[in-house]
Amino acid sequence: MAYLNENYLNVKESYLFSEIAKRVSSFTEANPDKKVIRMGIGDVTLPLEPLVIEALHRAVDEMGNAATFRGYGPEQGYAFLREAIQQYYSRGGVSLDMDEIFVSDGAKSDLGNITDLFSIENVALIPDPVYPVYVDTNIMSGRKIVYMNANAENGFLPMPDDRVHGDMIYLCSPNNPTGAVYNKQQLKAWVDYANAHEAIILFDAAYESFIGDDSLPRSIFQIEGAKTCAIEFCSLSKTAGFTGTRCGYTVVPKQLKKKTCDGKELYMNKMWNRRQTTKFNGVPYIIQKGAAAVFSVEGMKQAHEMIAYYKQNAKIIADALSEKGIKFFGGVHSPYIWMECPKGMLSWDFFDYLLSKAAVVGTPGAGFGVNGEGFFRLTSFGNRENTMEAMERIKKLL
Amino acid sequence: MAYLNENYLNVKESYLFSEIAKRVSSFTEANPDKKVIRMGIGDVTLPLEPLVIEALHRAVDEMGNAATFRGYGPEQGYAFLREAIQQYYSRGGVSLDMDEIFVSDGAKSDLGNITDLFSIENVALIPDPVYPVYVDTNIMSGRKIVYMNANAENGFLPMPDDRVHGDMIYLCSPNNPTGAVYNKQQLKAWVDYANAHEAIILFDAAYESFIGDDSLPRSIFQIEGAKTCAIEFCSLSKTAGFTGTRCGYTVVPKQLKKKTCDGKELYMNKMWNRRQTTKFNGVPYIIQKGAAAVFSVEGMKQAHEMIAYYKQNAKIIADALSEKGIKFFGGVHSPYIWMECPKGMLSWDFFDYLLSKAAVVGTPGAGFGVNGEGFFRLTSFGNRENTMEAMERIKKLL
Repeated sequence: MAYLNENYLNVKESYLFSEIAKRVSSFTEANPDKKVIRMGIGDVTLPLEPLVIEALHRAVDEMGNAATFRGYGPEQGYAFLREAIQQYYSRGGVSLDMDEIFVSDGAKSDLGNITDLFSIENVALIPDPVYPVYVDTNIMSGRKIVYMNANAENGFLPMPDDRVHGDMIYLCSPNNPTGAVYNKQQLKAWVDYANAHEAIILFDAAYESFIGDDSLPRSIFQIEGAKTCAIEFCSLSKTAGFTGTRCGYTVVPKQLKKKTCDGKELYMNKMWNRRQTTKFNGVPYIIQKGAAAVFSVEGMKQAHEMIAYYKQNAKIIADALSEKGIKFFGGVHSPYIWMECPKGMLSWDFFDYLLSKAAVVGTPGAGFGVNGEGFFRLTSFGNRENTMEAMERIKKLL
Repeated sequence: MAYLNENYLNVKESYLFSEIAKRVSSFTEANPDKKVIRMGIGDVTLPLEPLVIEALHRAVDEMGNAATFRGYGPEQGYAFLREAIQQYYSRGGVSLDMDEIFVSDGAKSDLGNITDLFSIENVALIPDPVYPVYVDTNIMSGRKIVYMNANAENGFLPMPDDRVHGDMIYLCSPNNPTGAVYNKQQLKAWVDYANAHEAIILFDAAYESFIGDDSLPRSIFQIEGAKTCAIEFCSLSKTAGFTGTRCGYTVVPKQLKKKTCDGKELYMNKMWNRRQTTKFNGVPYIIQKGAAAVFSVEGMKQAHEMIAYYKQNAKIIADALSEKGIKFFGGVHSPYIWMECPKGMLSWDFFDYLLSKAAVVGTPGAGFGVNGEGFFRLTSFGNRENTMEAMERIKKLL
């Protein structure tokens, strides 16, 4: 008799975005004449940059010609893309071996699949509020989760606490949903903590390209000691609008080694390589060619134009909130604005208020965890006109 | 302290294709003038069909335009592709709901990731010889494996045996590496066995499009009772040359339910949906557009022209072996020819003999399991001229 994984009984249904969709749809039915502006979901709206489009077309042509056709590629990614990523890190002062870089179909997949490499005995230390994938994937494999409080007092940047035990530490900076960014001293404290406790930091850097201040770390590997305690997950989703094009990369340092419960040592780079070659067949050649274009000098320039556009939206949101004296986090080195709900409203109440009175949709903070209550996430990924109109409506309302 | 998954200590290094590469490279260094013909790896060589190329170009253009740009898509695949797959099944007499179909980046990923849904208490029942992924992914999660003998006596098609207990039953038909194909009566026996024992059949149908006889099952869901005991894994890799383009699909029937160890019932379709929405972000929009083109009437016609080309290669191989009186399996409804090594040679000895005397590369059967010893796999995925020349050389040699 085949038995199923009982941990799936403990995974909660993900109601957040379906509940939002339901309430928005009731509103539009009742108010067909109102123009609803959506600032809830973290999905990009600008098209792929011209250089990527050109590279994709060229790669499609190659696939249609026997002489240039590509069959199975290396599961870890083609050398041309891994080299381009290696050079990108190098420009940021981080030296990586090419085989420390694994190309993937996105950070979400790798953040989920990395749990394969760990014993179920570990405790996952996860901030609250949080991107739900860290929580759900650990519940699915039956691991204990300990939450760390991220709140207004610590600027939504929880720091290590020797009284709290964690083996797999999830950090996301710039943070989703709060937009908060760790500085180098703060990340160094985490790296030191992880090394001292032989813990692993799973560092989600999906929003690194929004950092506009060179003194802030874009990669955990800019911190001394990180190569013995950290794995980094990156993505082109927000850097170059690849949410529907799907390409990311994960860095697993070769010196990163840990023990099994019975004391045998394993290198995590080798384990991840074995996992990926066994359970993954690599990213489409066409998509890898598009991704490589992003990392060229001109490609990165075009990507930064898109990022600047979204950051200008973020500034419009931030300025409007400042004007109304509303406290918020993020919005500078991040596409997310994490605002306090006005007048002490609960986050779902503010959601309903904003939707009914201003026809603007955001994400209630409570959907990201207990500490999200009383907060509200707005995203800057919309178009300029809608963003401006939404903020005018909000200013008038509040 | 973070502990690692100790099961990775038990995963053997995959030496087969690296050992082949090493021996071929020594040979070519010593014999730079000899033209080596490779019939070892199961990778396609014909370019993507024209209709797919057109669809890919159109989709790339859509991604470069704000009005038609696509961000995050449904993790399960776009409706246009799931509907096309639904209609493909319907033409084969199998009725599926659209949400029983999950689009993925390939059968290998899904065959690996599906193990997430099962308790580690299950026994995996796996044929020998076999595609190594079934074995390695179960070792990685710590499951017990029981092998079933596939051999010349049973035509490399092992049948259920009440004395052998298995909970997760791996079947691949047309088979890799042997090319053997189950008929409907045989598959019905497996379905009845699985239903009687509440086991699950994980059915790898990656080579279904090579079946040229309508009386043979292309899908396990052509067999009565399969929807309560089977999950099917398919791929466009061999159907339409997508090995480097990456698109597959998995069918999880909605009525398929099993219990956890403590007796709670779960529906596997719902579990897989939760797994995929949590750990996967879907296949690139561009690639899904290319895949949908394959399922159109004209697209399937173009795909079948490719398949016919490879099958003609298979016939050339089969005819040459027949002429020499060498016994083989497969090669009719499969791109693989599974030949007995002549004169009772061991499979690596025959590999060396064929390489040194004829400069032809195949895959030693021993690399696929104990029962592969004494056999040798040739693939028909090369080009016509090379296939003909290789067989002339082999005929002359033997």
